[in-house]
Amino acid sequence: MTSVSETTLHPFDEAVKLTPSTPGPYAKSTDTLRQFEGRTHPAYANMVGPFGGITAAQAMQAVMQHPQRLGEPVSLTVNFAAGLADGPFRIEARPVRTNRSTQHWAVTLWQTAADNTDAVMLTATAVTALRRPTWSAVDERMPMVSTPASVPAAPFTDRVQWVGRYEMRLVAGALPQRWDDAETDSLTQLWLRDDPPRPLDYPSLTALADAFFPRIWRRRARMTPIGTVSMTVYFHADANELATIGDGYLFGQARSQSFFNGFFDQSAQLWSEAGHLLATTHQIVYYKE
Amino acid sequence: MTSVSETTLHPFDEAVKLTPSTPGPYAKSTDTLRQFEGRTHPAYANMVGPFGGITAAQAMQAVMQHPQRLGEPVSLTVNFAAGLADGPFRIEARPVRTNRSTQHWAVTLWQTAADNTDAVMLTATAVTALRRPTWSAVDERMPMVSTPASVPAAPFTDRVQWVGRYEMRLVAGALPQRWDDAETDSLTQLWLRDDPPRPLDYPSLTALADAFFPRIWRRRARMTPIGTVSMTVYFHADANELATIGDGYLFGQARSQSFFNGFFDQSAQLWSEAGHLLATTHQIVYYKE
Repeated sequence: MTSVSETTLHPFDEAVKLTPSTPGPYAKSTDTLRQFEGRTHPAYANMVGPFGGITAAQAMQAVMQHPQRLGEPVSLTVNFAAGLADGPFRIEARPVRTNRSTQHWAVTLWQTAADNTDAVMLTATAVTALRRPTWSAVDERMPMVSTPASVPAAPFTDRVQWVGRYEMRLVAGALPQRWDDAETDSLTQLWLRDDPPRPLDYPSLTALADAFFPRIWRRRARMTPIGTVSMTVYFHADANELATIGDGYLFGQARSQSFFNGFFDQSAQLWSEAGHLLATTHQIVYYKE
Repeated sequence: MTSVSETTLHPFDEAVKLTPSTPGPYAKSTDTLRQFEGRTHPAYANMVGPFGGITAAQAMQAVMQHPQRLGEPVSLTVNFAAGLADGPFRIEARPVRTNRSTQHWAVTLWQTAADNTDAVMLTATAVTALRRPTWSAVDERMPMVSTPASVPAAPFTDRVQWVGRYEMRLVAGALPQRWDDAETDSLTQLWLRDDPPRPLDYPSLTALADAFFPRIWRRRARMTPIGTVSMTVYFHADANELATIGDGYLFGQARSQSFFNGFFDQSAQLWSEAGHLLATTHQIVYYKE
């Protein structure tokens, strides 16, 4: 773990930094549209292009910093239309419907291609809401596991940059030791948090929801090319609770229900160390045999 | 169960019927946009407005009948921005990115308000894809249950029209018999299919994914007002497999992971009677104490 001086931005904050830009050709009205400029960050680089979780976090951030936002995130769905290229992008968060206590968002991210045309790289929808205290219950209990300190920190690979941005302490469900096509279950459980540690917020929780290695690599020991096509995060905590957690560990668990002709799903949960279920998340992932 | 003569459209087919309309004020280009006109159907009426599942099916149908569609549905996320009024609507399905084997869609549904302005009632995103046969596996097994014929058909209520459009044979997890605030688990299992029976397709599978009664009514015996705000369906079957199932029963299972300050989630599975997992689906639902 490295330390960050107080005058240096955390790499996550650098990565999700979006600068308001003047409305571009996609803008219909300056009242209801807000475009930002951002760029991929080398600290979150994947094998090719950026880690999908950081792109999802940038989509969440575009909603978070919109001046018309009502309330806090309840759900986010991000569709990865194409693999981002390293470099700048333009992102728009648009409140398409604002109700008394809920607000619906449409997000689009473009990059300029080599032929100077703008191409849609990501679409997203989100719901934010003013929450009120009500009867509440967590039915998906955190598995009884050891404490973070009792499990060694071991990233699942050191071949890509973004994995170094997470402290991962594997409890169960490692990658295969040999790529011999052997089959097993798809379950992984681990303690995880940002590295260096950083206070939890909605964008970082969004990125953490995508931090599990691809389920198919666990399920069947073969180096299968994959790419997430759509990811949904449901948030079950308010900003006060996230603030309480600070830079503490989360317990994450992920598994698949179906692998079918080129697409598999993943369902995952993220709990605070105290056992509060902060987010449930689902994704559908392309795989190529 | 009633019978439908061969010359009469099934109510589901009447309900998802969309008529191409000329591009309206939202159209930017006739090459990439296609708008349809539809209307709510009395056979799928809910307490107020239409059953959300039929609206989601209409969104799926707008993609299915688009002339530029590539492949078959892999995922659909529908955001219910506001409660539809009974009557006509306009719906647009737009292919925002077409790759070699995948295609990304944005869907918007509008209704005209009393003041003659157009209001967004629903947004959706979808991914369609050309699937190729690959190594496949179903990890979420259908629970060992009795056959459909051994369980009596009993709708969970007869107070709303749409429930009559489904034959439901409850296996476990009924509604409470008394609304006395008693707490229990959130699990429901049932056999279900269209009533009258109808060959399964992607729009009807989408509607079936929303046919479970609200989990909070099971979890806590209180008549709590609810409304789904966002629903995602992942499809794990191709059109040939859906055709093989025909009008057979599906086994459905639904449960919640979290109820937190006004929103709870639901995760559900739909299997064919032969045990193939056809769809996994997730939703986040507003509730008001």
